[in-house]
Amino acid sequence: MESQSYNKVSTVDGSKGATGMSRTVSKCDLVLRVLAMLLTLAAAIVLGVNKQTKVVPIQITPTLPSINVAAQAKWQYLSAYVYFMVSNIIACSYAAISMPIVLGTRNGKMGLAQIIIVLDLVMVGLLFSGNGAAMAIGLMAYKGNSHVRWNEVCNVFDKFCDHAAVSLVLSLVGSLGFMALAAIAALTTHKRYAK
Amino acid sequence: MESQSYNKVSTVDGSKGATGMSRTVSKCDLVLRVLAMLLTLAAAIVLGVNKQTKVVPIQITPTLPSINVAAQAKWQYLSAYVYFMVSNIIACSYAAISMPIVLGTRNGKMGLAQIIIVLDLVMVGLLFSGNGAAMAIGLMAYKGNSHVRWNEVCNVFDKFCDHAAVSLVLSLVGSLGFMALAAIAALTTHKRYAK
Repeated sequence: MESQSYNKVSTVDGSKGATGMSRTVSKCDLVLRVLAMLLTLAAAIVLGVNKQTKVVPIQITPTLPSINVAAQAKWQYLSAYVYFMVSNIIACSYAAISMPIVLGTRNGKMGLAQIIIVLDLVMVGLLFSGNGAAMAIGLMAYKGNSHVRWNEVCNVFDKFCDHAAVSLVLSLVGSLGFMALAAIAALTTHKRYAK
Repeated sequence: MESQSYNKVSTVDGSKGATGMSRTVSKCDLVLRVLAMLLTLAAAIVLGVNKQTKVVPIQITPTLPSINVAAQAKWQYLSAYVYFMVSNIIACSYAAISMPIVLGTRNGKMGLAQIIIVLDLVMVGLLFSGNGAAMAIGLMAYKGNSHVRWNEVCNVFDKFCDHAAVSLVLSLVGSLGFMALAAIAALTTHKRYAK
């Protein structure tokens, strides 16, 4: 057991092992960052172009026959989707901006690396709260709720709901990418600087 | 500049500096963990006991006069609040269980410390998604939405909405506690093992 723990420490202190690990981590960090960027970008685009128009019968008074009105579903109409959109755009932009910084911090600049760790964590919080909001509203639109008398909307705007669900899944995988980035940074970053 | 960076490294490698920092981090970690546990527990309790009954006039047919019916608001009626409740209970239980583990990993057991870091991160994701879901539904209940024809509910169940908002704030601060835990772990944990 003692020799095992000594070996672990030796890879931390030994410059060769640490440099090798640093390279692997950097590659992994960059791949995850690109994936997270692409996924949040795709989530924002899928929701951004999501729009559906349907003719819906609306009854103004009970005595008159219902009138057919063209109703449109847009992400801008629901504040939860606006928040989801904003959080994905912020996360995507941050992933793009952080890439050259991460490449620059490979051989030093501990302060910048620490800021990146904290910002990765902030992205996890931001994206997961956005996903939670979109999930809650999406589920309500899909199933409705008799207690608060909110009727389902997805029976009318089926395509809009499907695209919103795809966007949510993309964003969720992107958030898991940011979580993995934060986890990798937490588990390894300081090994780089500990040599 | 060179001497400054040397000093930084010396606190990592020097056993005295590292032990001193380890103690500070452990104290900070424990205080944050207790706070996060109490806040998520308080959030779960505040929402758990949240219930409001009101007499609401309901019109079954337009020709008949409306009937007064006693309507009740409960967190169990909305799936977003159920998810919020479950996420806070899981986070609170985890904070309680992780405390003795964190105390036990102060003098070694790197594997366990790494599991704690990853689980702290999972709690961040879980709590933030729960907060996002509760925030989205709470905001919808407070303001309503004419596009999807979901009427506001908080004009009737005002106390229920106020308590739900308090619970959300408590949970949000608790989540920030978990985020701080993950950040501290990411920024310092490996310094403890790097000596």
